[in-house]
Amino acid sequence: MYEIILKKRNGGELDNSEIEYWINGCVDGSIPEYQSAALLMAIFFRGLNFRETTELTKTMENSGKVADLSEITGVKIDKHSTGGVGDKTTLILAPLVASTGISVAKMSGRGLGHTGGTIDKLTSIPGFSAEMTQQAFISQIKAIGLVIAAQSGNFVPADKMLYSLRDVTATVDNLSLIASSIMSKKLASGADAIVLDVKAGKGAFMKDLAAAKELASLMVGIGNKLKRRTVALITAMDQPIGMSVGNGLEVIEAIEILNDGGPEDLKELCFALGGEMLVLSGRTESYAEAESLLKNNIANGSAKSLFKKMIDAQRGDSRVVDNPDLIPMAGKRLAVKSDNAGYVIDCDAMKIGRGAMLLGAGREKKDSIIDLEAGIVLHKKTGDRVSSGETLATIHYNDSKMLDTAIDLIRQAFKVNVSKVGKTPIILGKIDS
Amino acid sequence: MYEIILKKRNGGELDNSEIEYWINGCVDGSIPEYQSAALLMAIFFRGLNFRETTELTKTMENSGKVADLSEITGVKIDKHSTGGVGDKTTLILAPLVASTGISVAKMSGRGLGHTGGTIDKLTSIPGFSAEMTQQAFISQIKAIGLVIAAQSGNFVPADKMLYSLRDVTATVDNLSLIASSIMSKKLASGADAIVLDVKAGKGAFMKDLAAAKELASLMVGIGNKLKRRTVALITAMDQPIGMSVGNGLEVIEAIEILNDGGPEDLKELCFALGGEMLVLSGRTESYAEAESLLKNNIANGSAKSLFKKMIDAQRGDSRVVDNPDLIPMAGKRLAVKSDNAGYVIDCDAMKIGRGAMLLGAGREKKDSIIDLEAGIVLHKKTGDRVSSGETLATIHYNDSKMLDTAIDLIRQAFKVNVSKVGKTPIILGKIDS
Repeated sequence: MYEIILKKRNGGELDNSEIEYWINGCVDGSIPEYQSAALLMAIFFRGLNFRETTELTKTMENSGKVADLSEITGVKIDKHSTGGVGDKTTLILAPLVASTGISVAKMSGRGLGHTGGTIDKLTSIPGFSAEMTQQAFISQIKAIGLVIAAQSGNFVPADKMLYSLRDVTATVDNLSLIASSIMSKKLASGADAIVLDVKAGKGAFMKDLAAAKELASLMVGIGNKLKRRTVALITAMDQPIGMSVGNGLEVIEAIEILNDGGPEDLKELCFALGGEMLVLSGRTESYAEAESLLKNNIANGSAKSLFKKMIDAQRGDSRVVDNPDLIPMAGKRLAVKSDNAGYVIDCDAMKIGRGAMLLGAGREKKDSIIDLEAGIVLHKKTGDRVSSGETLATIHYNDSKMLDTAIDLIRQAFKVNVSKVGKTPIILGKIDS
Repeated sequence: MYEIILKKRNGGELDNSEIEYWINGCVDGSIPEYQSAALLMAIFFRGLNFRETTELTKTMENSGKVADLSEITGVKIDKHSTGGVGDKTTLILAPLVASTGISVAKMSGRGLGHTGGTIDKLTSIPGFSAEMTQQAFISQIKAIGLVIAAQSGNFVPADKMLYSLRDVTATVDNLSLIASSIMSKKLASGADAIVLDVKAGKGAFMKDLAAAKELASLMVGIGNKLKRRTVALITAMDQPIGMSVGNGLEVIEAIEILNDGGPEDLKELCFALGGEMLVLSGRTESYAEAESLLKNNIANGSAKSLFKKMIDAQRGDSRVVDNPDLIPMAGKRLAVKSDNAGYVIDCDAMKIGRGAMLLGAGREKKDSIIDLEAGIVLHKKTGDRVSSGETLATIHYNDSKMLDTAIDLIRQAFKVNVSKVGKTPIILGKIDS
């Protein structure tokens, strides 16, 4: 291991056996964490080339139990977002895409950040369970073509270890390490085709478009090299997606979309990503055909109906789909109002996200307890007209400990100006090779 | 700690409180080794400036028990070598300088490398003990003005921890980390004045003169900034010093010098370093005066007599000084002979050192058992004339396991050429500010 650290420190290229030696040693505990930490920092400075990054991804993918979806016929598609504020697209896309006849077998993690992950969000549906055996997972896909389950304890253990080490050694923000972490989990999930949603902007990990494109290219390259059809959309994350931020609140907004309502930006994002999923999986030939099929399956209720089936199969109360009031809501509400009249020129996703986290909607640390009911509902977004005294956002909360700080953050997030500004685009680009 | 790693990773300058937080956290165990490892690698890439390096040195110095020599009147002088093959100068200089009336209170470590450290070497004198209480240490200096003791367990613990971490994370070779490691130990030893012997060449840690000068300047700067008079000589380490490499063999050669014999290069080095020690401590005004005093104290036997007193005080058999045959020698010997006639143009210190280590004279790992009797006696050095079949070196060994490899190394170390070459200088430069 010393030789491996030294080689990378001096700018050398690690060969496959060295990468395997490192990752296997991490997982079996034979390589101490301080050596991995030193190597991670050397990688931060020296980088990994494409071959090294691909090899690292493959080795991590195979570090634990890999999902075996071979029993399921047809293309299995997956979708991944690099994480944004108010991003509830998986809740919509999974049933919507599955309703067109493609198997969607999703394994998700619990989130660390502004709000919970997809699993946390779904848990706000009374009774819903995301824990299941491999056999139950396969049976459910066979039965209804759709499942969203929690990753098992032995899912890509190398990534779990490296990520927790990177998190405390200031070695998170390296493109190769980010890409291999994301892609190893996607690959281990067993899908044949992967659509990536790489966020760019204030509320995203990648603040600028160029960096987001670079990350997207790298991940698409790794996916295709490792024989999974992969494309990425670069999408805007300057303001939250849709109007709701918070676990239960986001499920309610997802249900609105499945009921053929909901905010335009969220709908646009879902159709764009869903369209890519249908084309990539070969379900439709053109993007236009895909979009019309998706819109149709919202309008005719088949996406919604499949969502209900999934909730039933996973022991949740599927009545929430027709009656979202059955989802528990926070006991207290507070309106944040505008002091000025004019147009909203900024609704900073990072500040809104941080505010939601402080209210309890997200985890600051891995073992933080999440409040599924807490969150923020926006009434205005960038480009909207607002009068003085009009509500910008409603805070949903149970615990008022950090309420004042959250209010401050929401106030800071909104910028109002007298001159009119337009809506900002949500789809910023596509990377397919 | 995360913030400290991130700051250094991004090229920032650590302030004093951050350096103290890190070092104190290392020692009390509150900062995990993986975070220190990541910071060390970030320091490798970003460096530490002079202020940071000095602060690190001071904080490490005070991380454990610092020697209190305030009971001893007059200047206390210390000498340190960055490590070379066949370097037995401390064995000679300690009694020689002390014989002029300056207190020499030395704390040494056990060596990791080609041969043992000063303590290992002295241990080859039957009965000699380097372990003593602080009180016994002080008493001995008061009584005879000379002591060489082993560093206690709590001596600069921060350096012990960081060094062992650097050793396994490929972060040893950074000038600031090297300088602070050496200087923290010298400062904690309690001397008022320090003469550094910084080696440059094939057998040294610093292979080239420029790097050695840079390290010397940094250490001299730290010493003077922290109020100890400090100078450094840069000395040659392309070939071993003197003719003997190995613990017991080096003691015998040191005794030869104290008996007014011994090889010229070793004598020259001792007078140069000793001269600096006398001038720096104020014992003499000029270097010429110092040299004549030192030569005199060899010739009149007072250095040798003090060495005997020290051995007596530390329970060793001081008869070895007049009868070096009392030092145990290896049971087996083997001559390595020259295939060619001509002049020795190279006697590679690194290869000779490595050969001696393989014979058992040095430690490859911290817990390696050392064979005090094993080693190599050179018969020829650079510039010497050699005929075909003449002995280049004699191997002293007990264990023949690695003998063949050692022979190969010695053969490779010697290069013989028909054209005459001159002797190479041993003193390459002086750094006093």
